[in-house]
Amino acid sequence: MATAKQELMRNFTSEEIIHHYKISVIGTGSVGITCAVTILLEGLSDELAFVDVDEGKLKGETIDLKHGSPFMKMPNIVSSKDYFVTANSNLVIITADASQEKGETGLNLVQQNVAILKLMIFNINQYSPLSWKLSVFPKNCVIGSCYNLNTACFRFLIGQKLGIHSESCHGCILGEHGDSSIPVWSGVNIAGVPLKDLNLDIGTDKDPEQWKTIHKEMITSAYEIIKMQGHPSWAVDLSVANLTQSILKNLRRVHLASTIIEDLYGINEEIIFSVPCILGENSITDFIKVRLNPEGEACLRKSAETCWMILIFYNS
Amino acid sequence: MATAKQELMRNFTSEEIIHHYKISVIGTGSVGITCAVTILLEGLSDELAFVDVDEGKLKGETIDLKHGSPFMKMPNIVSSKDYFVTANSNLVIITADASQEKGETGLNLVQQNVAILKLMIFNINQYSPLSWKLSVFPKNCVIGSCYNLNTACFRFLIGQKLGIHSESCHGCILGEHGDSSIPVWSGVNIAGVPLKDLNLDIGTDKDPEQWKTIHKEMITSAYEIIKMQGHPSWAVDLSVANLTQSILKNLRRVHLASTIIEDLYGINEEIIFSVPCILGENSITDFIKVRLNPEGEACLRKSAETCWMILIFYNS
Amino acid sequence: MATAKQELMRNFTSEEIIHHYKISVIGTGSVGITCAVTILLEGLSDELAFVDVDEGKLKGETIDLKHGSPFMKMPNIVSSKDYFVTANSNLVIITADASQEKGETGLNLVQQNVAILKLMIFNINQYSPLSWKLSVFPKNCVIGSCYNLNTACFRFLIGQKLGIHSESCHGCILGEHGDSSIPVWSGVNIAGVPLKDLNLDIGTDKDPEQWKTIHKEMITSAYEIIKMQGHPSWAVDLSVANLTQSILKNLRRVHLASTIIEDLYGINEEIIFSVPCILGENSITDFIKVRLNPEGEACLRKSAETCWMILIFYNS
Amino acid sequence: MATAKQELMRNFTSEEIIHHYKISVIGTGSVGITCAVTILLEGLSDELAFVDVDEGKLKGETIDLKHGSPFMKMPNIVSSKDYFVTANSNLVIITADASQEKGETGLNLVQQNVAILKLMIFNINQYSPLSWKLSVFPKNCVIGSCYNLNTACFRFLIGQKLGIHSESCHGCILGEHGDSSIPVWSGVNIAGVPLKDLNLDIGTDKDPEQWKTIHKEMITSAYEIIKMQGHPSWAVDLSVANLTQSILKNLRRVHLASTIIEDLYGINEEIIFSVPCILGENSITDFIKVRLNPEGEACLRKSAETCWMILIFYNS
Repeated sequence: MATAKQELMRNFTSEEIIHHYKISVIGTGSVGITCAVTILLEGLSDELAFVDVDEGKLKGETIDLKHGSPFMKMPNIVSSKDYFVTANSNLVIITADASQEKGETGLNLVQQNVAILKLMIFNINQYSPLSWKLSVFPKNCVIGSCYNLNTACFRFLIGQKLGIHSESCHGCILGEHGDSSIPVWSGVNIAGVPLKDLNLDIGTDKDPEQWKTIHKEMITSAYEIIKMQGHPSWAVDLSVANLTQSILKNLRRVHLASTIIEDLYGINEEIIFSVPCILGENSITDFIKVRLNPEGEACLRKSAETCWMILIFYNS
Repeated sequence: MATAKQELMRNFTSEEIIHHYKISVIGTGSVGITCAVTILLEGLSDELAFVDVDEGKLKGETIDLKHGSPFMKMPNIVSSKDYFVTANSNLVIITADASQEKGETGLNLVQQNVAILKLMIFNINQYSPLSWKLSVFPKNCVIGSCYNLNTACFRFLIGQKLGIHSESCHGCILGEHGDSSIPVWSGVNIAGVPLKDLNLDIGTDKDPEQWKTIHKEMITSAYEIIKMQGHPSWAVDLSVANLTQSILKNLRRVHLASTIIEDLYGINEEIIFSVPCILGENSITDFIKVRLNPEGEACLRKSAETCWMILIFYNS
Repeated sequence: MATAKQELMRNFTSEEIIHHYKISVIGTGSVGITCAVTILLEGLSDELAFVDVDEGKLKGETIDLKHGSPFMKMPNIVSSKDYFVTANSNLVIITADASQEKGETGLNLVQQNVAILKLMIFNINQYSPLSWKLSVFPKNCVIGSCYNLNTACFRFLIGQKLGIHSESCHGCILGEHGDSSIPVWSGVNIAGVPLKDLNLDIGTDKDPEQWKTIHKEMITSAYEIIKMQGHPSWAVDLSVANLTQSILKNLRRVHLASTIIEDLYGINEEIIFSVPCILGENSITDFIKVRLNPEGEACLRKSAETCWMILIFYNS
Repeated sequence: MATAKQELMRNFTSEEIIHHYKISVIGTGSVGITCAVTILLEGLSDELAFVDVDEGKLKGETIDLKHGSPFMKMPNIVSSKDYFVTANSNLVIITADASQEKGETGLNLVQQNVAILKLMIFNINQYSPLSWKLSVFPKNCVIGSCYNLNTACFRFLIGQKLGIHSESCHGCILGEHGDSSIPVWSGVNIAGVPLKDLNLDIGTDKDPEQWKTIHKEMITSAYEIIKMQGHPSWAVDLSVANLTQSILKNLRRVHLASTIIEDLYGINEEIIFSVPCILGENSITDFIKVRLNPEGEACLRKSAETCWMILIFYNS
């Protein structure tokens, strides 16, 4: 007997698989899921793959998102504990990481994360035509998202003080995430008018308006958010979606992203830190050479990366 | 000495407050926050107010969302444990509720939630020009969101079986949330072709294709999602955003929403359950009178509402 | 001397070209341009190629759209009178056509358009790895957009009569564009409730409510729009963007699209007309077999296609 | 006999009108219509009113947009030759104007447009609670859109030269539209790095890279677009939608907008020209005081406004 489907439709043509914008998310903790949802809500991806070791959680999350699909233009979600589901991704977002233990230095954490990362990339590598060798870990393929957010937060606080939307407030934060991060006061401007031209002492202790409290507030609020919520930050997810958009759409916008760089500001070894860079389909292609005074350069040389989220981009 | 702001700008005109689309969210648990973010990402609101008794959590959530504001076109978030921040809302979403205790009947939960709701409305009422009296609890102002989602899930599963996007699969779920919910098989259609015309026994035990397993899968998966995730459902939040869109933009689309109704399908007392209704700026204005067979009507008369999320709409 | 660019940036990595969602538009008349803009505003494409014989117009349109790029997330527009710019398109929209001359039959116009189409495809073919032979003109690769719009218009008018958003009003128009198009009254429904169940004579002369005037209004208004505006219809462009979304995102939604079909409703030769079909990455893959009464089938057999816009889809 | 509507639905509550975001467009030439569509596609308005003296055109345009409504979340379009349809608008966009005749000076055109504007405002005024007197023509309520576009175009060309998205290229154009417009080279920067720091002679004749050709290209291309297209610019419409977003959502972003100002850069009489200003729900509230060298100030004092499109904002 014919099924209702056979009675309803007549097939017209055979189907062949077409390549879509596919994003894979490794780790379905709340960071991974909310990143994925944010990307879906902004219409940036047509296919989504989740990988996690916890199969029960994986199944629940996948069913939940599928049930919401009538409210999004998004048909395809796959998931597995096996990396084969990530085959042919345009972008792999790795949200699993080695958590920072008390007393550990930032540098240790980087080493641990790089080790975990290498294992993950080895797995991803089996199902995707990656051209790089792991031994020469490709320098432009590791993008930390936290500096994009730091800079967003810095711009929000400047905007709040001036009564202007953060989109129109320009400025950036370099270097390490946290206490020794470096605000580039000389570059802070509105419509091309540098605030330093209006207040020579901006950002220093001598400044009667004490603009440097903005930088302190930025650092403090990161801790407050972690302490008070007990769940990951929405601002982080929006920042990741923002970076994703520049990569998938090849926008070549300037973002503050942290990556493995060398030979800049007198730093000779390879180290992960944050500078303004141009982000497009080839991930980071160029840096902006921000001019720092000697004091700023000294700060930067001490910086190390403690970034807990890494974006990997590769050409499928 | 002039501040940098005074040096930067010249004021041009005095400002007066203009009314915006304002949404208030009572309760900043993860349901409340993710509802809010979903609504923001879809650009449905220009002002957001949070109310919660936990001031620490409130502060953290508010800072986090503000830091993400460079990535959204959204300038205004206010929060307080005091209801005054909700003044002049277009929509109030109440996500705090009396949790279902083991062994409790659904009806008890409704009574508790209505009591909590009345208290909340009393508070909201002090800061907003509501014209209704609490004693005549306005019947069109309580919208349960879970049926909109049940129906979304039912349509997704039909689409999966047929290989068609759920947006093009039509059908609905009436009555209670859970085991005794009622799929209206006679109304299931693709492009106006009722599946019942192609398979007379659809939805019954006699059906050789056993379409009724779809309804069972819908019920089961709700429990699986709760069990496996330990956090609220994204599909619920997307469903709430979908209802919000119809209200704020006065779309008058048909949604499956649960509300307090009476005198339908031979039910004489006031009871909360779910029927297709037209949703716009005046909340629910009309029902669609779905034809049920006697068996379906009998099922419906047994139904009671266990909905855990309530949307309140009022004209500011 | 170093340029400002060299002073500003340091290159970090070589670039390689990544495949993007590319749409080519043949013909930059106002239909072509507004289609393109609508698609861009909905974020459906990352690369755009225009082909036109008028190089002056081509240059002006391209400059104009590029100048608007700060307001859209869209970096890449290329144009040429040479088809090489269309290389590797995901979708080619052909808006140039043989205009209908007075007294000509619809069938003639189809023949002319098919001839022009074959020439264009020959050109496109040189720069894209198309696997089909022109002599066996692939039946699922010609999608007329006008029926999607006819159906949209029919649903709008039903919604206007009932006070419900057209998105919640279901029904479709089959067959020829214009006077002999066929509204399928049996399939018109709201939330699965067929209007024919409430008014047996709906769509016939006997109907006291005269619903059939809606079909007449649909036909008339198409002429009024053409007559009064002197420029192409926005509704047509929105309809094309809607079809494009289903193709590029592989949504498999049901659309009313006209295409070359055979052996349906007792029609034995190949003819272009409109039925509900499932549209995804492989273009039209399936039809919905709408049940017609003998009168409806007779009407359909008389239908011929006069569609003036054709979408070509191919796998790059 | 009951109608199908009465059989289908049961009314549940009486309806009252709620205020929506309403935009009125005066003039349904292609500028007016494409502005409206752009605003609709970006979801910025829930109600739209058109006013035009040509009732036939008005009817055609309105029908066309209504037929496209299934593809947009937008239910309400009204139109009339009578201004009463504009009642309670949040924003009125005036696209009708006195065209520039050959040999006329820019100043004359301003005087003519102001006269036409006053008549229009008198009409609008009858149906909206405007608080200002026409005799003291409110200085912050006239926003020319062309400078926002000039600046967009300038940023696009800088981005093209550097290989960076225009969103990340900062700089602005002051003063008159056309040949004597003034690029502020000192403010041009990427990530806070002023290009003038890298190339001291930027924008001058001595510059070996001849960046000033970018300004010339900006001026020339405006003429080319007009000449080659024969229809209004998409970039203009996107720019208007961008300004509209800042107003309706109270974003307080910095835009280059032209308005009636006085007592700036040594200009003592009231004149319309363009400076960076903060735009929100109260229209323009503040200017950014851009530092100019004496040569730049002299140029500015010669400037007059030839802007052909005016946005009027008022608080309903």
